[in-house]
Amino acid sequence: MKKASSRPPRQADQGAQTKGALTRAAILDVALDLAASHGLEGLTIGTIAERMKMSKSGIFAHFGSREDLQVEVVREYFRRFESKLFQTALLQPKGLPRLQRMIDLWMQTRIRELNSGCIFISGAVEFDDRPGIVRDELVHSVQNWRAALARAIQQAIEVGDLKKTCQPEAMLFQIYSFVLGLHHDVRFLKQQESIALAQQAIQRTIDENRARP
Amino acid sequence: MKKASSRPPRQADQGAQTKGALTRAAILDVALDLAASHGLEGLTIGTIAERMKMSKSGIFAHFGSREDLQVEVVREYFRRFESKLFQTALLQPKGLPRLQRMIDLWMQTRIRELNSGCIFISGAVEFDDRPGIVRDELVHSVQNWRAALARAIQQAIEVGDLKKTCQPEAMLFQIYSFVLGLHHDVRFLKQQESIALAQQAIQRTIDENRARP
Repeated sequence: MKKASSRPPRQADQGAQTKGALTRAAILDVALDLAASHGLEGLTIGTIAERMKMSKSGIFAHFGSREDLQVEVVREYFRRFESKLFQTALLQPKGLPRLQRMIDLWMQTRIRELNSGCIFISGAVEFDDRPGIVRDELVHSVQNWRAALARAIQQAIEVGDLKKTCQPEAMLFQIYSFVLGLHHDVRFLKQQESIALAQQAIQRTIDENRARP
Repeated sequence: MKKASSRPPRQADQGAQTKGALTRAAILDVALDLAASHGLEGLTIGTIAERMKMSKSGIFAHFGSREDLQVEVVREYFRRFESKLFQTALLQPKGLPRLQRMIDLWMQTRIRELNSGCIFISGAVEFDDRPGIVRDELVHSVQNWRAALARAIQQAIEVGDLKKTCQPEAMLFQIYSFVLGLHHDVRFLKQQESIALAQQAIQRTIDENRARP
């Protein structure tokens, strides 16, 4: 939507910029949707152009190449993930409450997205041996989230919620593996019962590392 | 290699059959290799023809379609997996020795294949929402292996090596998840240290479920 500008001479320019930004955001929305169900590799300019009822060159005007678009999809996916998970969890006090909230929100997101798929998990397989900017952006996002989890575990040890002997790397490996297992079993094997098994396994890992009161 | 036949009239036919079988096996070898590094979706008749220095129609003479070839690759991969893992583990007595051997051999295979990739793990993501004969064959193979593991856990409970309270489905979920975590961390994040973390997590899961002597 155009906004009235207080600087009339630039009004047309600003309107065009806003329209451009809106179109770009709309393209990104469609691309995110396609990437979730078909993977980042299933993302083609042709399919997006068709869905948007635009020409391919219209799409290229906003994203220079398919690879640039894939990178932007990873960034946008992570931005949304971050705003839903990190920021909400930071409202909880440091220690187990914050860690537990991060894990709960993560599991909720994973379960909600089981029908569509997760760009990070499918991307990890699609790009595991394809060097390039898309892979770099994926690794960067995943490592960012893992670092936040490791930090929350470390803080929970420091405030005395988790045992001093708790190994953050081992705990992170185990919890992350259970989320991958959940994704594998429900998406691929169609075993819904693995949702409960994953929740149980994660809770057990937390309980094992919990400091005795 | 041709073999001398005791039935001379059919010698030429048999020779052609043997040659056909050898070519088919050679195509399958190349296809397995390509699928391991590029995924089942990266398997094209064109690439195989190029590697084999054959025409595409030459390949189609042995495998009716790309999908048929993908199915045969999954079958052959599973056949090799089965002969290396199942059969060797069956030499161990029922109970924890057999279960432990299955898991050890599985981990060895996974670690050895970390450079190339695993058709089951990458296939699980590639085909998670693509119905068809390739997906069916993949699910069939993976479920076959999971059933063998669940059976070995059940037997270990029955012979008194694992606790009566051990839940085979939960234990299987956890161990399978750690193998997926290992694959994810080493292939995608290039974190070699996750090999040790996976081994430690699996051993811990076994020890937790071990019956007290």
